[in-house]
Amino acid sequence: MKSEFEFITNLKNKYSLNKIGDDCAVLPKDSKTDLVITTDLLVEDIDFRLLWTKPDFLGHKSLAVSLSDVAAMGGKPVWSMVSIGVPEAIWKTDFVEKFYEGYIRLARKFNVELIGGDVSKTPDKIVIDSIVAGEVKKGKAILRSGAKVGDLIFVSGELGGASGGLKLLMDNILNNEFINIWLENLISRQLQPLPKSSIGRRLGFTQIPSAMIDLSDGLSSDLNHLCRASQVGAKIYAEKIPIDSNLVGISNSFESRINYALNGGEDFELLFTVSPNIFFSRESFFIKRGFLCIGEVTANAEIIELITNGESRILESKGFRHS
Amino acid sequence: MKSEFEFITNLKNKYSLNKIGDDCAVLPKDSKTDLVITTDLLVEDIDFRLLWTKPDFLGHKSLAVSLSDVAAMGGKPVWSMVSIGVPEAIWKTDFVEKFYEGYIRLARKFNVELIGGDVSKTPDKIVIDSIVAGEVKKGKAILRSGAKVGDLIFVSGELGGASGGLKLLMDNILNNEFINIWLENLISRQLQPLPKSSIGRRLGFTQIPSAMIDLSDGLSSDLNHLCRASQVGAKIYAEKIPIDSNLVGISNSFESRINYALNGGEDFELLFTVSPNIFFSRESFFIKRGFLCIGEVTANAEIIELITNGESRILESKGFRHS
Repeated sequence: MKSEFEFITNLKNKYSLNKIGDDCAVLPKDSKTDLVITTDLLVEDIDFRLLWTKPDFLGHKSLAVSLSDVAAMGGKPVWSMVSIGVPEAIWKTDFVEKFYEGYIRLARKFNVELIGGDVSKTPDKIVIDSIVAGEVKKGKAILRSGAKVGDLIFVSGELGGASGGLKLLMDNILNNEFINIWLENLISRQLQPLPKSSIGRRLGFTQIPSAMIDLSDGLSSDLNHLCRASQVGAKIYAEKIPIDSNLVGISNSFESRINYALNGGEDFELLFTVSPNIFFSRESFFIKRGFLCIGEVTANAEIIELITNGESRILESKGFRHS
Repeated sequence: MKSEFEFITNLKNKYSLNKIGDDCAVLPKDSKTDLVITTDLLVEDIDFRLLWTKPDFLGHKSLAVSLSDVAAMGGKPVWSMVSIGVPEAIWKTDFVEKFYEGYIRLARKFNVELIGGDVSKTPDKIVIDSIVAGEVKKGKAILRSGAKVGDLIFVSGELGGASGGLKLLMDNILNNEFINIWLENLISRQLQPLPKSSIGRRLGFTQIPSAMIDLSDGLSSDLNHLCRASQVGAKIYAEKIPIDSNLVGISNSFESRINYALNGGEDFELLFTVSPNIFFSRESFFIKRGFLCIGEVTANAEIIELITNGESRILESKGFRHS
């Protein structure tokens, strides 16, 4: 069966929709600025469960996923819209009000103005569509498609925490009386991810990355998306991948923890490529921000190699979802 | 229980969201142009039923409702995004492909570029969020709030057809073997409404209206929204309201037909106010386009009077829904 990713690729080709296919669409705004814009649909029991989250966390996360797409273009987020549909029983509670509390708290943190949206009833499930627009200097949006052979591959922070948190929620950890700080951190990474908006904007401003994507589906999937768009391959080193340190709270096995980092989604860190010249001339920029080099871009188009203890294997995309 | 309308008004006040409350938000684009932007959520079994429609009609209508909001600001539609979530069983069919066929057919008619969106699974119902952006000359978006006492009230075309069509669908008319042309037209007004994009843009260009709104909820509700935003009242004349001529196919009673025109939603005609001076100096403009004067703006803030055979009564909002 076709994946969402394949469907969108076909649609793009069939109707020549050339603005589709990156984290955001890029549109001309004025003589100095482009607009980058994204929309993300979140559906109850597909993308979240009411039992596991709180309405303000959900509001926060709805905005965070779209802010992350704007960050991945190197954009400064400016305005947003959100549509929410809820069943009658939820409408009667303060759920939607709390949802907006969480949404607006995060929006204010990044100076994003909520300019519109829609509120509607649904028969039984909650649905949310979040739209965020940002600004970049004209022609300077960082695309998925700019990676060159020999570029170094970086991530902005630790990976695997959000999917570790999801695993805990699926295992009904919330019913347990004692949850240690590791587990709390993992759950928080799942329910209240903090988008890398400041870092994304800084990377856009400096024009350091040759290509960038946000880690929403998981490293194996998203690196694949970036390589496909750039028509390159990649070689990454297992021991260099920054694994969320809280994952030791749920697993002693490196094998298991690296699996979260490679295939778990929703960390909303940034994955980007940088030419070696730029890296070596600005090494302190990377060190200061804790950006970690996990590998390099290769000429083997769309092939991702994972090197573990000197041994290489092909890494399949096993992401959280395609979107 | 609070209505969606009240909820949004409270939200707007609570967080000082001053771009919310019209058909579209208005944003600065460049030195000469503003962007107008809207989003509309459509949910299966609330806004449409699969039994009654076809996927390409649904694609068409999803875009049409947002195009209509842009028309109501006097805007020229430019680009759109659409998010669609469908259950697994629908995903396996060609439904989503046909949905986009209908969407893009209408988009091309008005030169609107599809620039993005999201495709997702849902547990059981289809949800769609449609976003359209348009352009207006800087500071020239036509708002709901500009109506002045003494202005004349116009509609762009016949009313009540879409809700007549909805009634037929609810009565299972599609199971009947013979459907005459009247009924066919009504059903078509419900399933494939044609937004007044060219007219809206022309009204924006000429700056003829003092205020404008699209008739999505129904005349009684939408006139109320316009009056509330402008802090005025209105007096309208039953015999001047253009009732969809196809409604004679389902009712011989004027009472019943005017009820469709007053309270049925989704006609997506435009409702606008014009100062008498402008009207009398450009009467041919109105006649040529079939715009009909149905009444005038009064000083009785938020009171809508309906005059029938010389007798006046207060018209309550009984619209289709608030959005």
